[in-house]
Amino acid sequence: MNSSPLLAELIEALRCLPGVGGKSAQRMAFHLLERERERGSRLARVMAEAMEKIGHCERCRNFSEQPLCTLCASSSRDRQVLCVVESPTELAAIEQATGYRGQYFVLMGRLSPLDGLGPEELGLAKLTQRLGEGEIEELIIATNPTVEGDATAHYLAQLARAGGVRPTRLAYGVPLGGELEYVDRSTLAHAFGGRQILD
Amino acid sequence: MNSSPLLAELIEALRCLPGVGGKSAQRMAFHLLERERERGSRLARVMAEAMEKIGHCERCRNFSEQPLCTLCASSSRDRQVLCVVESPTELAAIEQATGYRGQYFVLMGRLSPLDGLGPEELGLAKLTQRLGEGEIEELIIATNPTVEGDATAHYLAQLARAGGVRPTRLAYGVPLGGELEYVDRSTLAHAFGGRQILD
Repeated sequence: MNSSPLLAELIEALRCLPGVGGKSAQRMAFHLLERERERGSRLARVMAEAMEKIGHCERCRNFSEQPLCTLCASSSRDRQVLCVVESPTELAAIEQATGYRGQYFVLMGRLSPLDGLGPEELGLAKLTQRLGEGEIEELIIATNPTVEGDATAHYLAQLARAGGVRPTRLAYGVPLGGELEYVDRSTLAHAFGGRQILD
Repeated sequence: MNSSPLLAELIEALRCLPGVGGKSAQRMAFHLLERERERGSRLARVMAEAMEKIGHCERCRNFSEQPLCTLCASSSRDRQVLCVVESPTELAAIEQATGYRGQYFVLMGRLSPLDGLGPEELGLAKLTQRLGEGEIEELIIATNPTVEGDATAHYLAQLARAGGVRPTRLAYGVPLGGELEYVDRSTLAHAFGGRQILD
């Protein structure tokens, strides 16, 4: 039995957050009510606005509340290079880890016929059009190294070649700082097969 | 660089939740935007309402959006027994684990002079008044078994005795299913000292 129906509703609603079960939801609700009312109200306000206003950038399909996202609107990003990622999470990882200054295209998924995700759902017509505009010289394909990500990469490389654009893909192999002993078999086999000449 | 200022604000605001750092906040924001817009909007609505409307029950100090919480307002709860807990989290744990059908009093803290928490901050005047009304027969003291929780329990027991009410405290000892080998020293010493006669 809960002391307040509204509190019970808040705990239930918090469970829509990923990785949050009943116990964490309860802890979050009590924490906000006991110590963070103001920041809780602010979170509620920002969340309501974000859920309503954030759509997708017309150019790169990433999340944006404007027709063009800040990355596509920026004049300081290199327009000769385009990096294709599966989702905004990967875009954020690349932005944080690398010094990449080109543009992006976010598929919001990967080719997966069984889930009903084909070229149309991934906005590939838009990508094809951009590749045909003649501005882009290199298409960096940064899909995940999974079966579906590989198939998508293969498809994207074909699109790039058809548009006269050079396709490249991230290097896959043994991660830095990793010990060979603990690297999984397929990564090791891939790295072994793809060994490079030292000069 | 983020694609959307509003998205960056949402990620920042999510960090007010306990246990949520930058990485989880980002994952939560993307998850809501990609898959749970409706539930996200609902969460925002409920959270705004909860932060604004939930106050404290006049009688037991627990969270409630009404002057009396549902537990205090319920006619099916036993009015002869009162259980004192430090916070709503502990109340919830007792409600979920036990068949207790009495009433509660929530201190919203524990006696801790260094943090400026004295009898007044814990609403003990209200508790003293209830103990003096003559309805309560047993005061179950369920403060945490910490130094401050113990001091609070001691103080509450005195209040109870002064009001002619029988104070009791939860049994502390080796947890069920625990192995003696792995129980911490002070719990084991307490359980050993408090051993009971089998009949």
